[in-house]
Order: sequence, then C-alpha cells, then structure tokens
Amino acid sequence: MLREIFKLGNFDLQCGETFQDAFISYEAHGQLNSEKSNVIVYPTWYSGNHEDVRAAIGPGRALDPEKYFILVPDMFGNGHSSSPSNTEYPHDRGRFPSVTPYDNVIAQHQLLTNLYGITKIQLVVGFSMSAQQAFHWGALYPELVGAIAPICGSAKTASHNWLFLETLKKALILDENFNSGDYALQPEAGLRAFTAIYASWAFSQTFYRENLHLSWLGGKFDSMSGFLEFFHNFFTPKNDANNLLAMLDTWQRADISKHKKFEGDLSSALSAITCKAIVMPGRTDMYFPPEDNEIQVAMMPNAELRVIESIYGHGAGGPGFSNQDDDDFIDQALIELLGDG
Amino acid sequence: MLREIFKLGNFDLQCGETFQDAFISYEAHGQLNSEKSNVIVYPTWYSGNHEDVRAAIGPGRALDPEKYFILVPDMFGNGHSSSPSNTEYPHDRGRFPSVTPYDNVIAQHQLLTNLYGITKIQLVVGFSMSAQQAFHWGALYPELVGAIAPICGSAKTASHNWLFLETLKKALILDENFNSGDYALQPEAGLRAFTAIYASWAFSQTFYRENLHLSWLGGKFDSMSGFLEFFHNFFTPKNDANNLLAMLDTWQRADISKHKKFEGDLSSALSAITCKAIVMPGRTDMYFPPEDNEIQVAMMPNAELRVIESIYGHGAGGPGFSNQDDDDFIDQALIELLGDG
Repeated sequence: MLREIFKLGNFDLQCGETFQDAFISYEAHGQLNSEKSNVIVYPTWYSGNHEDVRAAIGPGRALDPEKYFILVPDMFGNGHSSSPSNTEYPHDRGRFPSVTPYDNVIAQHQLLTNLYGITKIQLVVGFSMSAQQAFHWGALYPELVGAIAPICGSAKTASHNWLFLETLKKALILDENFNSGDYALQPEAGLRAFTAIYASWAFSQTFYRENLHLSWLGGKFDSMSGFLEFFHNFFTPKNDANNLLAMLDTWQRADISKHKKFEGDLSSALSAITCKAIVMPGRTDMYFPPEDNEIQVAMMPNAELRVIESIYGHGAGGPGFSNQDDDDFIDQALIELLGDG
Repeated sequence: MLREIFKLGNFDLQCGETFQDAFISYEAHGQLNSEKSNVIVYPTWYSGNHEDVRAAIGPGRALDPEKYFILVPDMFGNGHSSSPSNTEYPHDRGRFPSVTPYDNVIAQHQLLTNLYGITKIQLVVGFSMSAQQAFHWGALYPELVGAIAPICGSAKTASHNWLFLETLKKALILDENFNSGDYALQPEAGLRAFTAIYASWAFSQTFYRENLHLSWLGGKFDSMSGFLEFFHNFFTPKNDANNLLAMLDTWQRADISKHKKFEGDLSSALSAITCKAIVMPGRTDMYFPPEDNEIQVAMMPNAELRVIESIYGHGAGGPGFSNQDDDDFIDQALIELLGDG
C-alpha cells in the first residue's frame, strides 16, 4: 500500500475559481502491470477517506490487490485532499470554493494520466458520493473507462436528496459556535444534530425496527442514544465541520450533465456512458432510491440495474456497513465487470 | 359548527403530574341525535387544529355533518387546548409536562361522557398523530368505540420515527434565541431548520422527483426554496416553538401498550382493539411505513390493512394534503366503517 500526495498546482474549478496549490491525496493498492491494463479506481465517499475504502479491497476478493492496481483518491474536502481544513487563505474554512464531482474526477484524471500514464481504466467503482464520481467518470471519459459500478449513488442528486442535505447544513450552522466557519472549536452541538439527521436517513425503517442499529459495525449499544453517540463519533472528530459542509456542497451539485460537453442535458450525458455498467441501488436506500437509478439506467446504452435486496438502507452499499450478503452481492457484480467471472 | 372549551379541572397525567385548570378546545359539526348514536371523533394531528380537520368534513362526504355529530378535539399542546403557550407557571413554556396520547384520549373521553353523556362512538378517525389517538381510543375503550380508522399513523411510535422527531428537536433547540423555551421572539432560524427537516420527510422521493412540491396545496413555486418558504409558513406562526416541542414529545411517547391496563405488552394492547378497524398507511409514507401497520394489524382481531397507493408520502392521509384520489380512497373506507356503503 502506498499513500501519496499528488500536486495539481493551479487547478481551475467549474465554479470559475482557480484553486492555488491544490492537491489530491490517494492510496494505491497492488502493482500497475507493464501494460498498464489492470487499473481500478475507487474514489472516496461522503465523510470517508482512503482508509475506509480498504474494507472493499483484499486478496481473493473482487478488488484483489494481487491482480489489480487499485487507486483510491480522496475527495476534495475530506481533510486529506485539498479541504477547508488544510487550505490557506483566501480559500480556507468557510471560504473554500464550490467543488463539483467533475472537479474531483478531472483532478483524478490528471493523477492517472500525468503521473502514471494510464490510458485505460478497467473499472471505476463507487459507493454513495463516489458512485456519483463513477457516473461522472463514465460520462466524461468514455474512451478511457472500461466499466463503472455505481453503488447506492446517482448520476444527479435528486431534489429530495438535495433537501436532506440542506437540512444537515441548516442544522449544523445553527450552532452559535459555528461563526460562519471561523470557529475556534468544532461546533459540537451542531455536529450532533447533523449526525443524528444523517443517521435517521442512512438506514431504513426496517433496519431500526429490527434493532440492527444496536449492533451496527459490531457495536453493542443498549439504546438509541448509545447508537447515536457511536454514530457521532464515527463522523467526528475525523471530519471537520467546514469539510463536511464542503463535501455536502459537492453532493448537492452532483449532476453529470453539468459540463460544457452536455450543456445540462441529462439524457445526453447518460447516453455518453457507453461502457458496461452495473448500477446497484439499495432497495431501502432513502438517499438514492432504486427508482432514481432505474430512470437513469434506461438512458444508458450498456447498463444493468441490479438492486441490492437489503434492509440496511443506504448502508447496503458501504463495504462493511451492512452484512456479508450485501458485500458478496456487490463483489459478484464487480467480478463480472472485471471479466473474472 | 360549534367551538367550545371544555374544562377538565385538575387533570392527572400519565407522567404523574397533576395539571391544574387543564382544558380542551373542540369543534363540533352537526347535531347529536336523540339516541346519541351518531357520534364520530376526529382528533387533531401534529401542528394541526380543529380548523384544519374541516377539510375532511362536509355534506355528501363520509364525514357528513348532516348525518353525524362530529367532535374534533384539539390535542394538548396545539395552542388551542392546554399548551405551553397558554398555560400559567409552573407549567408554562418549556415547563409544560409530558403528555401522552392516552392523556389526550382520556380528556376527550371526559368531554364525551361528562358533557354529552355519550355511551357509543360510531367511529374514531385520525390522521398521523390523531391516527395514534384513534388506536389508543380503540385499545382503552373497546366497549365504547364502534370502529376506528387510523390513517398514516401507528399504534406505537417506531424507533425510526422517534429518531426523526429527535432530529427536529435537536435542530430547533440549537437556535441561540431558544433559551430553553424562555424566548422573547420565536426562534426563527431554528424553526426554519425544523420545517425543512419536516418537509424532507413528509413527502416521498417520487413526490419531489415529479415536482409536486412546486404546486403543493394549489401553490405555484418556482423552486425548492419557494416551496420551503411556503411550508415554513404553513407551520408558523400558528405553531409556537414550545407547542411544537410539546406535541413532539407526545408523538415520541405514543405507545398503546403504555397503560396500566396493558403493562407495556403491545400484543395485548393491539388484541384489545376488538372493534372494526380499517388501518390505512400510505405506500410511500416515511414516518409510518406500511410494514409497521402490517405487523400491528396482524395482532388486531377485527382489522383490515388497506394501503393508500399514493406517491404523496405522509401527506397521502391528510385531508386536502394530497389529491382527490387519496381523499376519495379514505372516504370510501370511512363510509364502509360507518355502514353507509
């Protein structure tokens, strides 16, 4: 495993701003073969980082580092790549510019092509916001990408999902310590409201009805408040409040049609994803319900919709976030896309 | 139509406190017949009051004031019955005691028996929190209640729904103006976060995908923010922040088994509902998904589950909150329960 920083220099963002001294952090698993033909990209999801993605990777699994060169680029805003918490004035803290999934994908593309000279990616995998990045990869670089596997994510953030995100933001910034992002200490009360809202949406009604929250991630909680405390600490302190808001902004802006190549035409952007795709929503995911993907898959020329029949809600798609069945279901699809079946 | 206040005097609450000079407000439609056999009760829902219930009542409809005597008691905390906003110290504002759905139903029972001498209710109808009250009526007074029609509500607040409510509270009280309920002006920013969270859950993903929010209740909004502004004003100013929190507490405590008669045994409480019941969840209701009712109906001896196939989410069950089809579907079930079919 290799952990590196890739310097982007002055990086032009879709919002029109130029980001000085931008960089992306990434982790690489396995070895790039001599033909440079064994590349997999798995970007990070909301609140996650390259360490969290390790749970999807392992010898004998679909994402096998003994066979593949697996690049895990950290998303802008996650505290490892350029983020509000690690950027100098004038782009620090609440002054961090708006970043889109395309900005992330273009930065990742520079890493792959400029540093590694990669001209073919076998597979882009993603969960949640990284599924959104997988869709963007497929739409923008169809000649480069062999297949995409978006898991519990969508090609465009739906109105309903946008509103959920807006409520997270509204709650967090209410904290009197938030101070427009110029806080001395993390806005703890605001973050607690934030993580509670997040938890309420992240899992299904059935998940809670069956008390799966009381043993989530191998925990042992005797009440909802015990689980909420754990979930809060799952988000914090690794996630700074401004970082969470920056990534939230990226999520709200996710739309593969928002590129000059597509001029806002979602159908055109979806039909540009000519590679193979297995799109895997979770049956009970309240962020990205299967219907959103179903509509999108119908406009993709080479895509299959394959629903994860899970009661873990959005958690169904996160490696280790649900159960072995869900992880196996996803791995099986990845094996098919990699032609290892 | 008659609007009255019914004085309860010193009223013992389930929490152990005695509420001095408690009262319930109610509206009555139609005339009580000489046999006192034409009584319908329709309590109020969260944030609603007797005026809002009028949308379910009308000549020629199931709830026909020309045939029935329809009592609409306001829920404690809604600003019309005893509430944080209209109660004197020591039970004013944030000091308002915890009130359960049973407390509401027992107060309503006193109104019906002590004031009107009613010994038979043909039907208790309810939407949302008032559906919860309908379940409580059926469990506690089986000899009195002829039928219940709980619409988009449950016999016990599920963990998941409890958590949603907790997020509303967490967001609202973050407002620095809230001041433990002793605010001089309504905590506007907190209420805005509150109403946005409420809106995000109140309707389904499909509702938003099809842009029904942009024309909800006959409105014409050009954006999500226009809708959110409207939705905010739909809640406020008619609902005081402390009142919203008091009713929220009642909602969180809803559980028909929480009575000395049932000692926490939900199965026992559900099987005590011997009257006819048509339980109507909304297919896409995220507060009270059909599965919760399905489990409950299986323990009720004389109940039918009848799902409202609507994309309006929780709104499916509120009179005038969705569309004519949903209102007609509900009216048809009420007509059957009233034996008017």
